[in-house]
Amino acid sequence: MEVWRLARVLSRTLCLNKSTCGAVLVTSPFLSGGTTVLQGITSRSYSSTGPAVTESTALVYRRHGDPSQVVQLETRKLPELEAKSVLVKILASPINPADINMIQGTWRTASVFNEGDLVTVPNDISVLSAATLGVNPCTAFRMLSDFESLVAGDTVIQNAANSGVGQAVIQIAAAKGVHTINVVRDRPDLQQLTDRLSAMGATYVIKEEMLRKPEIKDIFKVCPRPKLALNGVGGKSATELLRHLQTGGTMVTYGGMAKQPVTVPVSALIFKDVKVRGFWVTQWKRDNKHNDEALRFMLDELCTLIGAGKLSAPSCTEVGMKDFHKALDNAMKPYISSKQILVM
Amino acid sequence: MEVWRLARVLSRTLCLNKSTCGAVLVTSPFLSGGTTVLQGITSRSYSSTGPAVTESTALVYRRHGDPSQVVQLETRKLPELEAKSVLVKILASPINPADINMIQGTWRTASVFNEGDLVTVPNDISVLSAATLGVNPCTAFRMLSDFESLVAGDTVIQNAANSGVGQAVIQIAAAKGVHTINVVRDRPDLQQLTDRLSAMGATYVIKEEMLRKPEIKDIFKVCPRPKLALNGVGGKSATELLRHLQTGGTMVTYGGMAKQPVTVPVSALIFKDVKVRGFWVTQWKRDNKHNDEALRFMLDELCTLIGAGKLSAPSCTEVGMKDFHKALDNAMKPYISSKQILVM
Repeated sequence: MEVWRLARVLSRTLCLNKSTCGAVLVTSPFLSGGTTVLQGITSRSYSSTGPAVTESTALVYRRHGDPSQVVQLETRKLPELEAKSVLVKILASPINPADINMIQGTWRTASVFNEGDLVTVPNDISVLSAATLGVNPCTAFRMLSDFESLVAGDTVIQNAANSGVGQAVIQIAAAKGVHTINVVRDRPDLQQLTDRLSAMGATYVIKEEMLRKPEIKDIFKVCPRPKLALNGVGGKSATELLRHLQTGGTMVTYGGMAKQPVTVPVSALIFKDVKVRGFWVTQWKRDNKHNDEALRFMLDELCTLIGAGKLSAPSCTEVGMKDFHKALDNAMKPYISSKQILVM
Repeated sequence: MEVWRLARVLSRTLCLNKSTCGAVLVTSPFLSGGTTVLQGITSRSYSSTGPAVTESTALVYRRHGDPSQVVQLETRKLPELEAKSVLVKILASPINPADINMIQGTWRTASVFNEGDLVTVPNDISVLSAATLGVNPCTAFRMLSDFESLVAGDTVIQNAANSGVGQAVIQIAAAKGVHTINVVRDRPDLQQLTDRLSAMGATYVIKEEMLRKPEIKDIFKVCPRPKLALNGVGGKSATELLRHLQTGGTMVTYGGMAKQPVTVPVSALIFKDVKVRGFWVTQWKRDNKHNDEALRFMLDELCTLIGAGKLSAPSCTEVGMKDFHKALDNAMKPYISSKQILVM
């Protein structure tokens, strides 16, 4: 059965295997012969009368180093298709910080998966939303669900508020009626950034310096101290978040942009009972590989928010696959707020 | 009702109030007229024909500073006794590190409590065991119970293994068949200390330097990596404990002898899913002030271990109340392994 299905892909990493990477993607209505096709609608599909695809163009690397130096474009032959194989044409694929930190796979134009390893998304969401759904919104969703029981009126504080995860946190929290205090680094276009995050639903957008000023207490006259802190930075920034947590609150670390450890005062642990945790969405997907319900529930919730216009894709820059050098370089620049999406 | 009950006290701080400080102590068999006297047997008691006691000698402080400088001995008049008052004569009272760090109460020879605030202990355990039961063994018991589900064959790693908490951890863990890796600072009498902790049931006693050596891996050929790390030190010592935890394991901080914060690598949080928590027994007692069952269960378990010779009091030095300067000074010396107990 050689079928070319022009499909949507949630994310490059997600394509590899549902059991290690979680969700993906689009299967064709033609492919329903008793197999476990998870619900969802194919975006577009071609019958097997389409042209035979035997090769994929892929970004691969063979040695460690500066990503834009070591990654190169190669053409690779696709494997023979077997009974339950699905040949997937990739439409778009984001470059995530985790990809940069530990490049282990490749970006590619087409690939073959076992159909059991794929999961569908509705076809009424945009390619960019679908391409960026699998990592950042899932990370935000789980961190807001799995550590503290948040209800409308509660507060979450986060640094890296302008990151892909940060923007998803703002929007998912706002949809729940949860206040967010969003810490960003000072920058020339701060007002513009503040306006953009506020439009997404951010309750407060503050500079990191503000965390150390007495004026921050004015915020806690309006909304309660945070139950949950989300840390994508580490170092001093994380310690400052901790200081403002409620007694018994949790800080979840999901990234370490500052390349410094998380330093926790002993008194915060003993007398304020703060809980210091970490989260890695890839591990969550591994742990839940047999829990299709949890994955399905999360994707449905996120796609509902997207469909309702409450969860937008992060600012994206679409880059042709041949310009991957530029995309990789941009993905590593600290102040580029735009996610690089390779369009195939 | 003026009765002088010569009673055992679990600990000075525990006497103040069960709701804030948890368990205490000994009520008389004469005091059972329908009131909530928790089960237990009075060690000794005198009827109201005994001499009237109207004063207490107490160690008090009125300003902050070096404990042995600011604490002084004073005689204080006791309050009038009311219907459910219990006048308690204190037999012995330990000096705990927490007392030194934040002296908030006083040591005293007699005090008056509401009987509902007292809880009994069996009278077949020694005064020193009773006097040291309320803080360190309770801390050890809760840390071994409330954070990870430990079964026989599991491993716990701890620093400050020679502290009061550390010794209780060794013994309670050994009674459960749980391995302990016990980290101590190097010292002249190391072999003697190792022998003493091993006799208590310590599986391994190692020097802090050992945590950084490859030889430590030999231990993990014999017993599994620890699910639980108990940290009474902070700083580098805590970070070293973390390194050896199992994926998904928990480090609980209950003290900070090194006066340095706990530093957690971001990768340990994200990729090893370590959980960093704190524990304070006083807060546990506050949180459980209406949960007599939990308190009773813990004290029964601990007293059973004491009765069976499986949980001994820490090395104690009994000091007369008038020699409190010496006791306070000794309690602050870093290498004194002996707990100072004021005997009234």
